[in-house]
Amino acid sequence: MPLNTQVLKVLRYFIKYRYLVLRPDLIFCSSLLCVCWTGCRHVSKAAPQAQMEWDYDGPCMKTAVPGPRSMRLKQLGEIQNVDAINFFCNYEESRGNYLVDVDGNRMLDVYTQISSIPIGYNHPALHKLMADPNNLSTFVNRPALGILPPGNFADKLAESLLSVAPSGMTRVQTMACGSCSNENAYKAMFIAYRVSNRERGPGGPTQEDLRSCLINQEPGCPDLSILSFMGGFHGRTMGCLATTHSKAIHKLDIPSLDWPIAPFPRLQYPLEEFTRDNAAEEARCLEEVEDLIMQWRQKGRPVAGIVVEPIQAEGGDNHASADFFKSLRNIARKHGCAFHVDEVQTGGGCTGKFWAHEHWGSDDPADIVSFSKKLLTGGYYHKTDLQGYRIFNTWMGDPSKNLFLVEVLNVIRRENLLEEVTRSGKALLQGLYALQEQYPGLLSRARGQGTFCAIDIRDDPTRSKILLKARDKGVLMGGCGERSIRFRPALIFKEYHVALFLNIFNDVLAEFK
Amino acid sequence: MPLNTQVLKVLRYFIKYRYLVLRPDLIFCSSLLCVCWTGCRHVSKAAPQAQMEWDYDGPCMKTAVPGPRSMRLKQLGEIQNVDAINFFCNYEESRGNYLVDVDGNRMLDVYTQISSIPIGYNHPALHKLMADPNNLSTFVNRPALGILPPGNFADKLAESLLSVAPSGMTRVQTMACGSCSNENAYKAMFIAYRVSNRERGPGGPTQEDLRSCLINQEPGCPDLSILSFMGGFHGRTMGCLATTHSKAIHKLDIPSLDWPIAPFPRLQYPLEEFTRDNAAEEARCLEEVEDLIMQWRQKGRPVAGIVVEPIQAEGGDNHASADFFKSLRNIARKHGCAFHVDEVQTGGGCTGKFWAHEHWGSDDPADIVSFSKKLLTGGYYHKTDLQGYRIFNTWMGDPSKNLFLVEVLNVIRRENLLEEVTRSGKALLQGLYALQEQYPGLLSRARGQGTFCAIDIRDDPTRSKILLKARDKGVLMGGCGERSIRFRPALIFKEYHVALFLNIFNDVLAEFK
Repeated sequence: MPLNTQVLKVLRYFIKYRYLVLRPDLIFCSSLLCVCWTGCRHVSKAAPQAQMEWDYDGPCMKTAVPGPRSMRLKQLGEIQNVDAINFFCNYEESRGNYLVDVDGNRMLDVYTQISSIPIGYNHPALHKLMADPNNLSTFVNRPALGILPPGNFADKLAESLLSVAPSGMTRVQTMACGSCSNENAYKAMFIAYRVSNRERGPGGPTQEDLRSCLINQEPGCPDLSILSFMGGFHGRTMGCLATTHSKAIHKLDIPSLDWPIAPFPRLQYPLEEFTRDNAAEEARCLEEVEDLIMQWRQKGRPVAGIVVEPIQAEGGDNHASADFFKSLRNIARKHGCAFHVDEVQTGGGCTGKFWAHEHWGSDDPADIVSFSKKLLTGGYYHKTDLQGYRIFNTWMGDPSKNLFLVEVLNVIRRENLLEEVTRSGKALLQGLYALQEQYPGLLSRARGQGTFCAIDIRDDPTRSKILLKARDKGVLMGGCGERSIRFRPALIFKEYHVALFLNIFNDVLAEFK
Repeated sequence: MPLNTQVLKVLRYFIKYRYLVLRPDLIFCSSLLCVCWTGCRHVSKAAPQAQMEWDYDGPCMKTAVPGPRSMRLKQLGEIQNVDAINFFCNYEESRGNYLVDVDGNRMLDVYTQISSIPIGYNHPALHKLMADPNNLSTFVNRPALGILPPGNFADKLAESLLSVAPSGMTRVQTMACGSCSNENAYKAMFIAYRVSNRERGPGGPTQEDLRSCLINQEPGCPDLSILSFMGGFHGRTMGCLATTHSKAIHKLDIPSLDWPIAPFPRLQYPLEEFTRDNAAEEARCLEEVEDLIMQWRQKGRPVAGIVVEPIQAEGGDNHASADFFKSLRNIARKHGCAFHVDEVQTGGGCTGKFWAHEHWGSDDPADIVSFSKKLLTGGYYHKTDLQGYRIFNTWMGDPSKNLFLVEVLNVIRRENLLEEVTRSGKALLQGLYALQEQYPGLLSRARGQGTFCAIDIRDDPTRSKILLKARDKGVLMGGCGERSIRFRPALIFKEYHVALFLNIFNDVLAEFK
């Protein structure tokens, strides 16, 4: 076949699939661009200074939500429970901060798939990664990472997870999701407790240990516990669920474990106006933590680890001070319990720092930090003495997610997204303060760090109505706790998105005055 | 830019990235083809009748394993525990039944990443999928499936998982991995037990239920149990782990639950030679199951579900008869327990039927069938009355894995892989029988269904030596149970691969005579 014929064949293919590459460093998905040979509508030039040109310029609502097409797709109910489904999405057409549904409605997304889309929809950097043929094998051949990792695995971990490792941590274990991350982190804490507390003699496990553990009995399966907090959420598999206490619906009918549950501080907001009361409340909770550790030791069910979120998310965006967490970490150390900070929802930059615990200003914040959601892969960091030994499953993560994470971190650095989040977060919180002053009977307790903000609504039914009204006007938000609305935008949520959001939110609230 | 210049630019890009598309229906990754303009070495023509031309023609060993490059990569030990790592892989160069390591050693893979690579490495059908720009958005934007699924989600479920649904099941819930699948299946059984057994009055949960469950207490968190079998393996998160009883190392130091554990039949092989003894052994185990259900009810910890593998895999490839499983299913029904068949390792075609339970010939084999590994996504099928209500997490699977699964199933159908597996499996088992006759002191208990085969070795140390020797000769196998070797090739393992394998295995065994 002569070269020219071959050239034309290649081009015909790309025209057929509407897939165009103009420059090696710029890959555009056809769904983001309307490509034709006579006139290209350039939605993006992908230059750093204009990176957000690929975003849409505002919401655009065409039908009620869910619209007729979404309603028809509810036939999914024949296959799965669809009670929690809001509507069906067109992810090809979604971009940046905007989620598009199958009816063509374009919504400013301040919830981002329960806080799990780090740099918006269809970011060009991620499409570029997919267009590199060197990356395809990583998607196609999922390895059993614990026995047969790819040659570049350590490098990819170094470029991705280790490049943002919490202070004092040089070791990381990937997992498939947030629940598996916490489950395995708990196991690491149990194993460490038995080893470091010298419960076991120098000879390793006894025959009795090995025999009894196979049938779920002591001493092989020891009666140890994890201390958690009321209002905490750490996942919904059985180990995690025993430490989750945010909503009854998560736990009802599922057998659980008799593990200690401490009160989490119920602070008054704005925090800076109630420092004395809040400090007293935190002291009360810390005292209770120590009491519980003593009680459970006496029960013969010692606390191997303490698990806590830097901001209780599902439980209603409950904050606590840096002093609270540092004291808690000291209590853990004093009693020989591992300290596990669950950053599944708070990690990845949304508080203005990559990890929420960085706001504590501690060099030694934790023994374990778990993550998922915005990190795209689950997993946990741990200190050297919490060996990953005996932590194993078939996949142990997914290297294709590490590839994406490398790019996400590059974008965060290149576009200074943590600074952007800090700036947008300040604007958002100021806006919420102004609104709660304007609607005092309706709104209260505005609070937040970075764009990880929340506000309380008068009552749960009103909250539901507000969420639906806002959606009809093109803003997608989520609830948390008993009557809070939480804001979980992507890291590319800029000040002008804040302004846009506040305008629409104000319009909605005006109807409830 | 004139058209010709644009054409050349596009071509230059593809030459630079060594990525060539010759026909829209054939996509070859550069790593599979040595592409140049003057002479193409066609490894594959991808025609159905020659589908295996993309496979290599045999093992090729260049160094000891792990080789020098793998040894250097063990620096990963600074980041993670590497005790279980065999060597590091070059997944770009791996193809079909052959895994290539970073030292260029090419091994016939009869273990396939703990049985999780369905149609071999770098199958052209999966690369083709990745080259379709319409699919990219599914990889780039991972949705929260439980609230905002993509518009094509029901269609993709229908094309993939529902097209191979077990008899009597029309509902399926995806999950990220095998452990999460079983954890959530157990939860579904607990919830169903409380609802279907009318433990709860018509008014739904009481205030006491809602209050007590938040603090892990009865009646909200009821004292229910799952009955499992000695030697069973169902995952390593805490709920799953309470039903796993294959190796002490999985369970040591992890707190567990007092749930009933029944004996699994220890049959004699070949099964057809010991029908009477085996039937007596199975009857004994079934009797024990009923006793345990009664005992645990009396304890106030009733059995909500029974979980069992169609062939105990990790526990040593322990088989039981169709009659055993059908009786077990009847016992479950009689006592109001759900019946959960865990097909995480047996599912996906390796027994010669898509699900191992199909060998039972039952129209109503189970209430729940869970899967992962070869299915590429985790999840579980369930009967209509086991509603998925309250089963939820952020991701609930990954639609990009469903895309791959559609293609895997197409390949299985197009290439009649279940028939191939039956054929290869017969050849493999006959070969194992011949070898165990040839090496009576060394080998025993050859057994299998399809290519899901195993054989026992004299003792554990000899097994370890055989596995290493075989690897040095270019065959990768895995162990299971106390002294078994298990065979878990991909579905594209043909009769000539069996012959190749048996030759090498024979050479290895000769050294141990």
